[in-house]
Amino acid sequence: MPTDTPQEQTSGGSVRRRERSRGFPAKPPVQIPRLEVPWPPLEIFSASEIERMLDAVYRVLEEIGMEILNPAALERFALHGAQVDAETGLVRIGRDIVQHFCSLAPERFVLHARNPVRDLHVGGNVVNFGPVNGAPNVSDLERGRRYGDIEAFRDILKVTHGLGIVHWQGGVVVEPVDLPVHTRHLDMYREHIVLSDAVWAARGVGGVQAFDGLNLCALEHGISLDDLARRPSLMIVTNVNSPRRVDAEILDSIMLMAEHGQCVVITPFTLMGAMAPITLPGALVQQTAEALAIVALVQMIRSGTPVVLGGFTSNVDMRTGSPAFGTPEYVRATIGGAQLARRLRLPYRSSSVNAAPCVDAQAAYETGFSLFAAIMSHSHLINHAAGWLEGGLCASMEKIVVDAEMLRHWAEILKQAEMTDDDIGLEAIRSVPAGGHYFGCDHTKARYQTAFYRPILSDWSNYENWRDAGELTATQRALGLWKSARDAYVAPPLDPAIRDSIEAYVARRKQALGDV
Amino acid sequence: MPTDTPQEQTSGGSVRRRERSRGFPAKPPVQIPRLEVPWPPLEIFSASEIERMLDAVYRVLEEIGMEILNPAALERFALHGAQVDAETGLVRIGRDIVQHFCSLAPERFVLHARNPVRDLHVGGNVVNFGPVNGAPNVSDLERGRRYGDIEAFRDILKVTHGLGIVHWQGGVVVEPVDLPVHTRHLDMYREHIVLSDAVWAARGVGGVQAFDGLNLCALEHGISLDDLARRPSLMIVTNVNSPRRVDAEILDSIMLMAEHGQCVVITPFTLMGAMAPITLPGALVQQTAEALAIVALVQMIRSGTPVVLGGFTSNVDMRTGSPAFGTPEYVRATIGGAQLARRLRLPYRSSSVNAAPCVDAQAAYETGFSLFAAIMSHSHLINHAAGWLEGGLCASMEKIVVDAEMLRHWAEILKQAEMTDDDIGLEAIRSVPAGGHYFGCDHTKARYQTAFYRPILSDWSNYENWRDAGELTATQRALGLWKSARDAYVAPPLDPAIRDSIEAYVARRKQALGDV
Repeated sequence: MPTDTPQEQTSGGSVRRRERSRGFPAKPPVQIPRLEVPWPPLEIFSASEIERMLDAVYRVLEEIGMEILNPAALERFALHGAQVDAETGLVRIGRDIVQHFCSLAPERFVLHARNPVRDLHVGGNVVNFGPVNGAPNVSDLERGRRYGDIEAFRDILKVTHGLGIVHWQGGVVVEPVDLPVHTRHLDMYREHIVLSDAVWAARGVGGVQAFDGLNLCALEHGISLDDLARRPSLMIVTNVNSPRRVDAEILDSIMLMAEHGQCVVITPFTLMGAMAPITLPGALVQQTAEALAIVALVQMIRSGTPVVLGGFTSNVDMRTGSPAFGTPEYVRATIGGAQLARRLRLPYRSSSVNAAPCVDAQAAYETGFSLFAAIMSHSHLINHAAGWLEGGLCASMEKIVVDAEMLRHWAEILKQAEMTDDDIGLEAIRSVPAGGHYFGCDHTKARYQTAFYRPILSDWSNYENWRDAGELTATQRALGLWKSARDAYVAPPLDPAIRDSIEAYVARRKQALGDV
Repeated sequence: MPTDTPQEQTSGGSVRRRERSRGFPAKPPVQIPRLEVPWPPLEIFSASEIERMLDAVYRVLEEIGMEILNPAALERFALHGAQVDAETGLVRIGRDIVQHFCSLAPERFVLHARNPVRDLHVGGNVVNFGPVNGAPNVSDLERGRRYGDIEAFRDILKVTHGLGIVHWQGGVVVEPVDLPVHTRHLDMYREHIVLSDAVWAARGVGGVQAFDGLNLCALEHGISLDDLARRPSLMIVTNVNSPRRVDAEILDSIMLMAEHGQCVVITPFTLMGAMAPITLPGALVQQTAEALAIVALVQMIRSGTPVVLGGFTSNVDMRTGSPAFGTPEYVRATIGGAQLARRLRLPYRSSSVNAAPCVDAQAAYETGFSLFAAIMSHSHLINHAAGWLEGGLCASMEKIVVDAEMLRHWAEILKQAEMTDDDIGLEAIRSVPAGGHYFGCDHTKARYQTAFYRPILSDWSNYENWRDAGELTATQRALGLWKSARDAYVAPPLDPAIRDSIEAYVARRKQALGDV
């Protein structure tokens, strides 16, 4: 039996204890590298079907229009030739305008991280994983399910960092409801900067929140806002109030980010049959139209600003209205949405998601299906890839570990195969007698320590050993693993002067915003 | 809350009871159809790498050879020009001989089922699912883990049939250890014929077992053995004693099947670092060489006999020797093995497998990865796709339901998209105000009952409803579902005269074989 299988981290006896140092957490997993998909993206629509859908996208924008609930945004649209009804906020945009401005958005770009190794490459065949975002609740097997707080927020950053699985951080990995609403974004941003050296996302709603994100990001990088604009580093991941409406607060955030040349990831939340047509092509037409209106707006404000077209189309349970994720419809929507984005030469964002009420086989297979679709469609940003549960209503600490295992599997699968004559191993085959075994041969001995991917969660014990060790499920074993990752967490380097400037900014702004 | 979610089948109160008839099991799932993969197969090797590996395959057969422990098989090989050492059983086969005979095997073929709708199409872009095979143990949440018996054997046939998820049945879905060893194959074959109308597999070891399989299959189809040879209907799924050895009993079975023109699925069991080189190319070279020797033998016996090149290459835990499945190495081996088979114009068999000790998130993600590889590599037969657990040491009743859900998801994902103007839904989008919803619109009402895939296991309830219904995991919910499927099982039609002939044959053979 392995002496450092995950379960022993929660149930091992003293005999085993000294052996644990051979495995995780004493030697935590290395950060997964930048990932490139070696296969062409999957497609579900023909080229002519894509053109038919795209025509409908433009007709939605030209004939039906978007409700833009922000006077400054309306001015922008009017300035560039859109038909604007200032009273209702309805904006109709000709396809020539949409096409022109969308063509100004970069097809691929880099967002700069404080640690240059962690620069986020967006576009092409690169896929990136991000953590759960926006959950109001957090759960773990020890403390149960509860509202999120800043401690849970920190724990999620530490564990996703420690397990080496995300290519960018935040947003709101869980809502810290223990902090005052109007200044909690400052605490979240500070935690991102202190606990991670990757690209991070600001909250996607509110001008104040974008303003503070921009300033803190500039401070983190030790540059001015003007320099930041030439060196995009920050992003927001934000929604549309589907169908066809964008509210003032979202637009404030988008416009401020655009003015400063930072990345806007715009994702209509279009559940088929609820906020979008019940048909897949219909929902994708609406999703793409809504996102393109924002892409155009961003380019109207500052041409060349990085934007990402986001997709979140899924189905609902038509008997209850409950959203469903990781379903066949979700898979097809992800693949089809990415196809439309590719046709438009825009990067695409999707998600690794599920609607399971607990971390069980359903959570794993729904997540597995959505991850398959996200990766094989060449989704450039894959949100919620660590810790999302309950259709996003809960961030689960154990789910982070299950997701880490799945993400690390994918990272291995996507590696290119090497092949030397020694890999082909004809002489190794010759050296082992018929009916013999390869355990002791030189070919094996030279490679056995690094030959195979070593899982962090999977338990390959036989039944008897597993039973005797307490019959722990993967979810139960995950409890010990996330706690180990949290406890073993080491913060990445941060210049003390920069840290001081961050703290001072946060204190000053809290005072200005009236925190008590 | 849905009134017919799976959990209510085990925990529902009387209020809900009358509503259950709306869902499964009163309306059991329909059989998934023949599945075609709309995407080209994934590849991990370049064309030149494939040729280099293939050269090594031929060199294994020419220079190193296979140990063939069966005099009749040795005669066959000698007759067709192979170099045979009758003393040791070592056979060396020139590549010209291997290539000639392998070229006689069909690239695609049909195995005939008693119910012609269920004919098994093997080859091209068609993927087929089969049940767990060869497990000595069975488990379920009520009765725990125990040795297999004929009752469990029947239950697995009923449940996989009832859930509509397999494209063929048997071999040994679980070992019925309560029956005498030398005649238990007769009972298993009878159950296949009585409980299923699909193609079934005979046990892959032993001449007696093949003989009885052939005769019972001919009786089932109401034709002679000669006619059966012209209408392939039976298969065996059998292994090689890797490395490079095939024992007498396996060869007896293979040769008898070949003489009667029935399908041989030959799968070397090549764990990297144990029975095969630790490198992926090395293991695939050995796997392909071993399988090709048998493919050639089958064609030497009866040219044109359907054969399938099987792959089972995976890694082991190098610290313990435990086999691992559904790993990144397994995924790559499956994709690479299928590539070699495609180059050889032979159908390929792989598996949907895992090494989890219980039906949990690990079982689901390992199964998910292997299923992804099997389907996306265009594996024509996907063994163990329903019920396999513990690296094959146990057939799990709850796992059948989890697998059923995953297989049915795939069946939906593989469907081709349709697109009418009405699907694009421009008028539906026009009809719903900005910020409104689509629940009540005509476009939705006309489609909501059939728009989306309806899961059998997934629970999309919100947390509170799920908690109040007993906090059941997917695995716990699966208990009620497989029992429902078993209890609702209805046997497919079987001509009473044929049934009598089956029973008479089994009785006669049991007497002949000395059953008591």
